[in-house]
Amino acid sequence: MVELIKKKRDGKELTPEEITEIIDGFVSGNIPDYQISAFMMAVYFNGMTGAETACLTDRMMRSGDLIDLSEIPGIKVDKHSTGGVGDKTTLILAPLVAAAGVPVAKMSGRGLGHTGGTLDKMESIEGLSVDMTREEFIKKIQKHNIAICGQNQTLVPADKQLYALRDVTGTVDNISLIASSIMSKKLACGADAIVIDIKVGNGAYMKTIEQAERLAEVLKDIGQQMGREVRAVISSMYEPLGMTVGNALEVEEAIATLQGKGPKDLTDLCMELGSHMLVLGKVASDKEVAIKKMKQLIDSGAAYNKFKELVGMQGGDVSQIDHPGLLPQSEYQFEYKASKSGYLHEVNALKIGLASVKLGAGRETKDSIIDHGAGIRLYKKVGDHVEEGETLARLYSNDKGNFDTAVDFLKDAYVINPNTLRKMPLILKTIL
Amino acid sequence: MVELIKKKRDGKELTPEEITEIIDGFVSGNIPDYQISAFMMAVYFNGMTGAETACLTDRMMRSGDLIDLSEIPGIKVDKHSTGGVGDKTTLILAPLVAAAGVPVAKMSGRGLGHTGGTLDKMESIEGLSVDMTREEFIKKIQKHNIAICGQNQTLVPADKQLYALRDVTGTVDNISLIASSIMSKKLACGADAIVIDIKVGNGAYMKTIEQAERLAEVLKDIGQQMGREVRAVISSMYEPLGMTVGNALEVEEAIATLQGKGPKDLTDLCMELGSHMLVLGKVASDKEVAIKKMKQLIDSGAAYNKFKELVGMQGGDVSQIDHPGLLPQSEYQFEYKASKSGYLHEVNALKIGLASVKLGAGRETKDSIIDHGAGIRLYKKVGDHVEEGETLARLYSNDKGNFDTAVDFLKDAYVINPNTLRKMPLILKTIL
Repeated sequence: MVELIKKKRDGKELTPEEITEIIDGFVSGNIPDYQISAFMMAVYFNGMTGAETACLTDRMMRSGDLIDLSEIPGIKVDKHSTGGVGDKTTLILAPLVAAAGVPVAKMSGRGLGHTGGTLDKMESIEGLSVDMTREEFIKKIQKHNIAICGQNQTLVPADKQLYALRDVTGTVDNISLIASSIMSKKLACGADAIVIDIKVGNGAYMKTIEQAERLAEVLKDIGQQMGREVRAVISSMYEPLGMTVGNALEVEEAIATLQGKGPKDLTDLCMELGSHMLVLGKVASDKEVAIKKMKQLIDSGAAYNKFKELVGMQGGDVSQIDHPGLLPQSEYQFEYKASKSGYLHEVNALKIGLASVKLGAGRETKDSIIDHGAGIRLYKKVGDHVEEGETLARLYSNDKGNFDTAVDFLKDAYVINPNTLRKMPLILKTIL
Repeated sequence: MVELIKKKRDGKELTPEEITEIIDGFVSGNIPDYQISAFMMAVYFNGMTGAETACLTDRMMRSGDLIDLSEIPGIKVDKHSTGGVGDKTTLILAPLVAAAGVPVAKMSGRGLGHTGGTLDKMESIEGLSVDMTREEFIKKIQKHNIAICGQNQTLVPADKQLYALRDVTGTVDNISLIASSIMSKKLACGADAIVIDIKVGNGAYMKTIEQAERLAEVLKDIGQQMGREVRAVISSMYEPLGMTVGNALEVEEAIATLQGKGPKDLTDLCMELGSHMLVLGKVASDKEVAIKKMKQLIDSGAAYNKFKELVGMQGGDVSQIDHPGLLPQSEYQFEYKASKSGYLHEVNALKIGLASVKLGAGRETKDSIIDHGAGIRLYKKVGDHVEEGETLARLYSNDKGNFDTAVDFLKDAYVINPNTLRKMPLILKTIL
């Protein structure tokens, strides 16, 4: 192993056999953590070639179970988001594209830090379960064309172990390692094609559009080498997506969006991502046809009904979908008001996300317990005019004591200036 | 710790407090190996500033016991060699400079790999012991102005632990880490001033004179920041030093050199290194005076007698010094002869060193047992003319089976060409 570390340290390309040796040795425990972390730091400095990255992805993917979706007819198109604040697109896209005829075999994760997770949001719904066997998962999809379950420990263990080590050794920020982590999971879940929403901004992992473009290229390159079509959409995460942050609040907004009453940014992003999924899934010939089809599915109630079908068959209380007022509510509310009049120049996504975690909507550590009713309802977006004393946001929590800290974050999050501004577009780039 | 790794990774300078935190945390076990190895790889890529290197040296030095030599009057000048093949200079310099009036409190190490260690060489002498308490060590020096003992485990434990980790994580080759390792040990041993022999060549750690010069600068800089005068001599290690490699064989050659009958290269290097030691120890006003003094001490027998005094007071059999034929002898010998006539263009030090290890003179692993009589006697140096069939080297071993492998190394080690050559000087540079 020390020779392989030196090889990477000295900028040479590793062979597939060598990468296999490293990953298999790490997962089996034959190569100690201290050698892997030194190796990862060498990768941080010297990067990986396209061939190395694809090989790494392949070995990570094969480190655990592979989900076989071949019993499900049709092209299985998965969507992945690099994570943002208020990002409830999966709750909307899953039933929407399933209703359009694309089979949705969704394996999701939980939230950590300032970004939320699909599973936590789904579990806001009374009775809904994301735990099921592999067989149940596939049966549900065969019957309903949709199911959402949790990723279990047997899926890509190399990624879990590697991420845990990278997280504590300063080796997370490498594009090849990030890309192989994303792709190994999507491929192990059996995706035939993948649409990736790469978020850029203060609330996102990628801080610049250039970084996001590089990630998109590496992801596409891995896809090409592994025979999977990949499309990437680079979208803004400078302010939260939509008007809600927090689990039940986001379910409520997803329902509204599936009924055609959602906020513009969230609806636009879903249309963009969904159109690529429909085209990749070969249920629409091009983007325009796909968007028209999705609008029809929303207008006809078919997308909304698919969501209810999903909730019902996973044991959730469907009456909460028809009456979102029945979703979990926090006991206390607090209105956060504008300190002056002017135009909103910033609604910092990261700080809103952190405020939301403070209110109980997210996890500070893996063991934190989620308060499904907690969160933030936003009333204004960047570019909007606000009057002094007008409510900018409503905070929800079961613990009044949380409001002070959350408000401190909000004070930092909002920037109001007298002059108007030209707002950055939501969709920054699409890479086909 | 992860923030400190990132700070170094991103090329920022660590504060003394941060370096202290890292080293103390590592030694105490509070910071895991995998974080230290990632940190070391970041240091490998981004280096360390002079201030960081001096601080690292200081913290490593303080990780264990500090030898207090203040009870011994005079300036304690230590010598360090970065390691080579056939390097028995300590055996000569210690009694020589002690005879000149510089107190010699020598803590030495054992050999590993293709380079030998002073302790192993000393132990060729029947009965000689390098184990003594700190008090005995100081008492001996107070009485005899000289003692040689082993470094025990309580001396700079940070260096031992760090080196073990660096060795298996590809992070050995960094000039700051190498320099701090050398200096922390020398300073912990109580040296007031230090002469460092930096070897360059195939048998040495430094492969180019530029590397050696950089190391010399870093060593001098650490010394300056820690208030110790450091002089560095860069010497050639392309061929072995002197005409013998192996423990008893080298003792025999050291005795001859102390009697003024040593080979020219070994004698020259001892004069060069010794002169700096005498000047730093303020027993000679300049290099010329120092060399004259050392020649007198050799001619008068004082240096030789000091060696006998050293051997005797450490329990060694002094008759073996007067009659080196009584030193351990290997049972078998083998003469390695020139395959053709011509000039010796290469006597590869590394390969000679490895052959010597194969014969039993060195350690392949820490637990290998040394055969004190084993080794190689060289008859020709680079530049010499040889006739086909003439003996180039005589091999000594207690196991006949070792000769084949050793001869394979020798075949690679010797290069004979018909044309003459201009030989590289032994002393490549002196940095005052």
